[in-house]
Amino acid sequence: MRVKAALAQHTGTSDPATARDKLQQAAARAAAQDCTLLVLQELHNHLYFCQHQDPACFALAEPIPGPATEFLGELAAANELVLVGSVFEQAMPGLYYNTAVVVDSDGRLAGTYRKMHIPDDPGYQEKYYFTPGDSGFAPVKTSIGRLGVLVCWDQWFPEAARLMALAGAELLIYPTAIGWEPQDPPAEQQRQLDAWVTIQRSHAIANALPVLCCNRTGTEQPAPGRSIRFWGNSFVTDSFGSLLAQAPADDECLLVCDLDLATIPQTRTTWPFLRDRRIDAYQGLLLRTAEQPK
Amino acid sequence: MRVKAALAQHTGTSDPATARDKLQQAAARAAAQDCTLLVLQELHNHLYFCQHQDPACFALAEPIPGPATEFLGELAAANELVLVGSVFEQAMPGLYYNTAVVVDSDGRLAGTYRKMHIPDDPGYQEKYYFTPGDSGFAPVKTSIGRLGVLVCWDQWFPEAARLMALAGAELLIYPTAIGWEPQDPPAEQQRQLDAWVTIQRSHAIANALPVLCCNRTGTEQPAPGRSIRFWGNSFVTDSFGSLLAQAPADDECLLVCDLDLATIPQTRTTWPFLRDRRIDAYQGLLLRTAEQPK
Repeated sequence: MRVKAALAQHTGTSDPATARDKLQQAAARAAAQDCTLLVLQELHNHLYFCQHQDPACFALAEPIPGPATEFLGELAAANELVLVGSVFEQAMPGLYYNTAVVVDSDGRLAGTYRKMHIPDDPGYQEKYYFTPGDSGFAPVKTSIGRLGVLVCWDQWFPEAARLMALAGAELLIYPTAIGWEPQDPPAEQQRQLDAWVTIQRSHAIANALPVLCCNRTGTEQPAPGRSIRFWGNSFVTDSFGSLLAQAPADDECLLVCDLDLATIPQTRTTWPFLRDRRIDAYQGLLLRTAEQPK
Repeated sequence: MRVKAALAQHTGTSDPATARDKLQQAAARAAAQDCTLLVLQELHNHLYFCQHQDPACFALAEPIPGPATEFLGELAAANELVLVGSVFEQAMPGLYYNTAVVVDSDGRLAGTYRKMHIPDDPGYQEKYYFTPGDSGFAPVKTSIGRLGVLVCWDQWFPEAARLMALAGAELLIYPTAIGWEPQDPPAEQQRQLDAWVTIQRSHAIANALPVLCCNRTGTEQPAPGRSIRFWGNSFVTDSFGSLLAQAPADDECLLVCDLDLATIPQTRTTWPFLRDRRIDAYQGLLLRTAEQPK
């Protein structure tokens, strides 16, 4: 099975009509290039409101299914694309998730993933907005394969990628929103970007799965003294972590990349890591911390 | 606490006296540069005999403590170095381990680690020689800190690095022996080396721990048609995975690098991954494979 994937790296917008226009254009361009998968960035319908804590932002949330998934379903069906999107989900008043949604190419909502690892640090006040997900790490079955969809902060946790792989994922997909703090010097900014690419490439290597990561670009400044320059650099790796395609830092981009899922079993027989996992000795992974040596 | 580390990247030898000379010279050079830690490559006292299955090679094994650890103890004490070595351990006739040994700077055997993940593929017939380790993932306490010692194939398993980190390791240390098959084209060889560096850098990133990896160099050909060109490239990263030092591919090298363990808590407050692990949802890590989606 081959998958021709497109990743839509966009600047954020607070205008819903503009956000829809951007998605419509990305879907049309992806379809025109015979893509079968379109991956969107995290919270693509909004500015990245989590830079600050503002109770008014909860009004942006909506149920699933709801207007956002209906629109994505229309886009998917009209362009015959499997679509991975991101929705600020209201499960009920007072209960909100950062949820990835997967729509199949017939427009049907194929599945969702509620972000399991929630960040909380200056610029990323997500624990204020989102309850940690309760969906576990289950790939979504689609017409093009089983999609292991994770979200942003999940990308730093090898456990998440491994669990998706063990559950049969054929692609690891990360909608994300990460960027630079303006006060960090360029060398430190480069070091952060490099670490971010490296750890996601490592998930490809450890699990012999292609990784697709779609990040936001552009600078968003919700208040004086608070801004993020989203670092773009959306990328795709093959099933051994080699970079196949990478977007620029500061420009919008539809990154297109052709993937061959047949490389997954090939890589896994050359590098038989799954054969050798020591499941008899991993109990400590279920603990916060192990006993410290005396 | 600062640790000035030396990694001794050597060619293999079948002559015990030559192997001892190499270690003696490396220890003296490390001490002359005020190092407090010397890391040796995997199975440094021998050629990498695991390229083929030969019952005669079991004669190379020895108990721990035994002649190899006694010699390492003398070296460590004479040069006031903490020493991480590697021994083909005979626990009893018929029961053998690939064991890392840690000797403190007073010459005392501080601890051992029996390699938990054992490879077995063309050129690396380790399941023939070694029983998978039973020591779990416990750092060894030494006068310079808690050393999270893992061995070679372990380097491809994020679980191993994570467990060492949760158990309080302050450094991740990998004695290793890996190289290129001569029939692989240069681009594929580079891709393998790159994946190997990348996944070990990712353990530094995920756990905010420096990684020290000491690999063998030189070509060993135990039989016609069977050879490995060990790819050297021993390296050290800081606690966010940035490369601090890297050895060449084909030359012997004493790679020296100064590390500051104070960066570990600093990195962990900037990047608070350990705070957010979903230990309530990781049970699947103890399974070979999860239920596949319908």
